[in-house]
Amino acid sequence: MTGYFITLEGVEGSGKSTQIKLIKKYLESLNYEVINTFEPGDTEVGQEIRRILLNPNHENLLPKAELLLYTAERAQHVSELIKPSLKEGKIVISDRYIDATMAYQGYARGINKSLIEELNNIATEGLIPDLTLVFDINPSLSLQRAKRVTSKSNSQGDRIEAENLSFHQKVRKAYLDLAQKEDRIEIVDASKSINEVFDQVKILLKKRLIR
Amino acid sequence: MTGYFITLEGVEGSGKSTQIKLIKKYLESLNYEVINTFEPGDTEVGQEIRRILLNPNHENLLPKAELLLYTAERAQHVSELIKPSLKEGKIVISDRYIDATMAYQGYARGINKSLIEELNNIATEGLIPDLTLVFDINPSLSLQRAKRVTSKSNSQGDRIEAENLSFHQKVRKAYLDLAQKEDRIEIVDASKSINEVFDQVKILLKKRLIR
Repeated sequence: MTGYFITLEGVEGSGKSTQIKLIKKYLESLNYEVINTFEPGDTEVGQEIRRILLNPNHENLLPKAELLLYTAERAQHVSELIKPSLKEGKIVISDRYIDATMAYQGYARGINKSLIEELNNIATEGLIPDLTLVFDINPSLSLQRAKRVTSKSNSQGDRIEAENLSFHQKVRKAYLDLAQKEDRIEIVDASKSINEVFDQVKILLKKRLIR
Repeated sequence: MTGYFITLEGVEGSGKSTQIKLIKKYLESLNYEVINTFEPGDTEVGQEIRRILLNPNHENLLPKAELLLYTAERAQHVSELIKPSLKEGKIVISDRYIDATMAYQGYARGINKSLIEELNNIATEGLIPDLTLVFDINPSLSLQRAKRVTSKSNSQGDRIEAENLSFHQKVRKAYLDLAQKEDRIEIVDASKSINEVFDQVKILLKKRLIR
């Protein structure tokens, strides 16, 4: 692999989708070739899996079935999009990846963590990000942001957003735990303004990526 | 578990869907409570996964993603429908189950068989059928049957039916192999007429199930 693989993680409303656009623009201004992507859903098959996963009517979707759907989507995503782009030497930035599964399905839903590691490994065939940015923010603040966006777009919110606050607190704690264990994970304080958050991101990119 | 779990297996067009109805009627006439079900798809979530799996436009669906989708569907099926029905003491008859995954994804698509065993185990939590009937027929004959049904219903056939003959020959061979390994699997000669096939089925049911 000659490219560089960056993943963005964080609770709902932590500002990832704003930052991912800024990062792409910034890295392109430095003459990198950049592909932005996301999970679940940035392939044709993935879009259909995403619809099942986020459908708020699927109240009886089993945690284990949910985990397997995320794994299927990831396998397709890695093979069809991420690996080929890295092979072409590009920087790939994915909004969510393996740590999201560990945080949401493992820490928050309580599924056995070694099962999740095993399935992450099956999906990715060992493709670990070079750098993971965790956008850290208290969910009681970020969920209000997410809701504002949802009510603007006039949708009813998705199945994950509809979980209660303590679920999202567990997700936050999970990311902080994972950051302590993995050298590739860096924490960004996402409670600040867009520009202040992006300033932190640029410092981390300079430290880790830009030669 | 107080119920009894029967699965039907065989290549496309082997007559499973005709036989499953006859078996239900027959066992009900003997005062058993019977639930007929099928994979992939006999739950609300399963229906949506089925649509992805059988969509003939998904030519780039990765074999591993396909396998994970079948596993997700099976996890939901076992937990939502099969196990609760068995707990109520019913006979559950499923058109396809774990052996289909081993035959189609393992033997025919060439995915690592221990990965399939592992995923089957994750989905079923060890729920093995009490009896599996393999409807054995040469695919060059059965696919003509399946096509006749398809052209009657005016559809274009699904993604699995569209595979070539050698794919289906591998599936047939797989089922014969599995039958040699597993005591729970019985072979039925499905090249005969509907009544002759059903006569064989009744003999097997009397031998294995009916006390």
